[in-house]
Amino acid sequence: MVEVIIGRNPLLEALKAGRPISKILLEKSTSSYSPAKGKMAEIVLLAQAKRIPVEYVERAALDWQSSTGAHQGVVAYAASKEYVTLADLLSLSREKNEPPFYLVLDGIEDPHNLGAILRTAEAAGVHGVIVRSRRAVGLTPAVVKASAGAVEYVPVARVANIAQAVELLKKNNVWVVGLDRAGDLDYARVDYRPATAIVIGGEGRGLSDLVRKRCDCLASIPMRGRITSLNASVAAAVVMYEVLRQRSGQSS
Amino acid sequence: MVEVIIGRNPLLEALKAGRPISKILLEKSTSSYSPAKGKMAEIVLLAQAKRIPVEYVERAALDWQSSTGAHQGVVAYAASKEYVTLADLLSLSREKNEPPFYLVLDGIEDPHNLGAILRTAEAAGVHGVIVRSRRAVGLTPAVVKASAGAVEYVPVARVANIAQAVELLKKNNVWVVGLDRAGDLDYARVDYRPATAIVIGGEGRGLSDLVRKRCDCLASIPMRGRITSLNASVAAAVVMYEVLRQRSGQSS
Repeated sequence: MVEVIIGRNPLLEALKAGRPISKILLEKSTSSYSPAKGKMAEIVLLAQAKRIPVEYVERAALDWQSSTGAHQGVVAYAASKEYVTLADLLSLSREKNEPPFYLVLDGIEDPHNLGAILRTAEAAGVHGVIVRSRRAVGLTPAVVKASAGAVEYVPVARVANIAQAVELLKKNNVWVVGLDRAGDLDYARVDYRPATAIVIGGEGRGLSDLVRKRCDCLASIPMRGRITSLNASVAAAVVMYEVLRQRSGQSS
Repeated sequence: MVEVIIGRNPLLEALKAGRPISKILLEKSTSSYSPAKGKMAEIVLLAQAKRIPVEYVERAALDWQSSTGAHQGVVAYAASKEYVTLADLLSLSREKNEPPFYLVLDGIEDPHNLGAILRTAEAAGVHGVIVRSRRAVGLTPAVVKASAGAVEYVPVARVANIAQAVELLKKNNVWVVGLDRAGDLDYARVDYRPATAIVIGGEGRGLSDLVRKRCDCLASIPMRGRITSLNASVAAAVVMYEVLRQRSGQSS
């Protein structure tokens, strides 16, 4: 399956990660009016080194490829990012020299949220992300772009049933913390130093009942004002960085 | 000045906050095909109680009012959200029973980022937000919508010069922490319990030089992966919730 990579940063990340790319389309003015500079020059050099064909096209052709028009003069065709299996995800993290740290997404539907979550997950050192195959967004070009390229570096497993995945994590001695508005535990009071999976619910709907029941505990983020919820990617980020803070051995 | 409020949640928040609204436009099908339910019914009831005129219009009329089309069948005209002065902001927070906690935005340009930051700021109990008037997004309808209504509850001061605002904060015994990729202090090692202002730079560019120089210290968020930066609204959220965590007296 072919996937379209849109924008300079996502393409640079894909090139650096050694992802197979079949062709790069650059906006014509880039070649005729101004010499390629900065990131664009880096893209052209990497493409030459990797012998990837570069084609100069009209801006309209790029607009047509990217639904948002935010292509910054670059579009590329790549082999689609592969999902890993849940078993692979578990064994990959066993190779790391620290207790596993997973993120489970129970139905994120907005590509920007998924991209932002993957970007933060990569930065926070998450070992792997588990997503749902139904009623959830997959690794679409919009997600790849919103992730600022992080999709290239974080293993993502897609499963049909999140509740079953949670059971499997528990069997592997992973402590499963569901983030839930009604959770009676302050998220910052949970001990994340042992093997941990954080489960984030879908936008608006939160965790599904089947998943909520299977979590080892339910934690919530304190809300001090009148707004009743945080954006899903913000909530995920707050908890991921609390995990990292605790694991860095910082006392408050 | 009239401002357009787009979508159900932002309008409900505006109504509950008692903001003056001159007219509400609802999509016609809402009245003829299905009785108003849930949030829509709440809007209609509040509008009746407050004697705000409600007009049923074609979907196209709503699409025309909201550039994104994501109006969920509701658009309303309201008096524009007012900025407060920096002096007001400082005196407002003196009335609170805790050390001041401010957020300073040095040039956020994306309306979704500003909206997400205001939403998190309201939830994290920030006393006030200071934004720049030039080369920065203001409180536009897109920001109001992305803030999930939080704009109604967080005082926002707009200043011409962020560096001067930082000086004023310091004169008021506020400890000013700049969030900077090159900051040599781990953000989680800063003590946020005294009066604190967190300064967040613009997307991509970070803090401006003049502002960076004036901060009491520069802190950074650890990046464990290969991606070199977090989304501005995610970075702001991580630090804001660390402030809240420390002030809740939680030891790790």
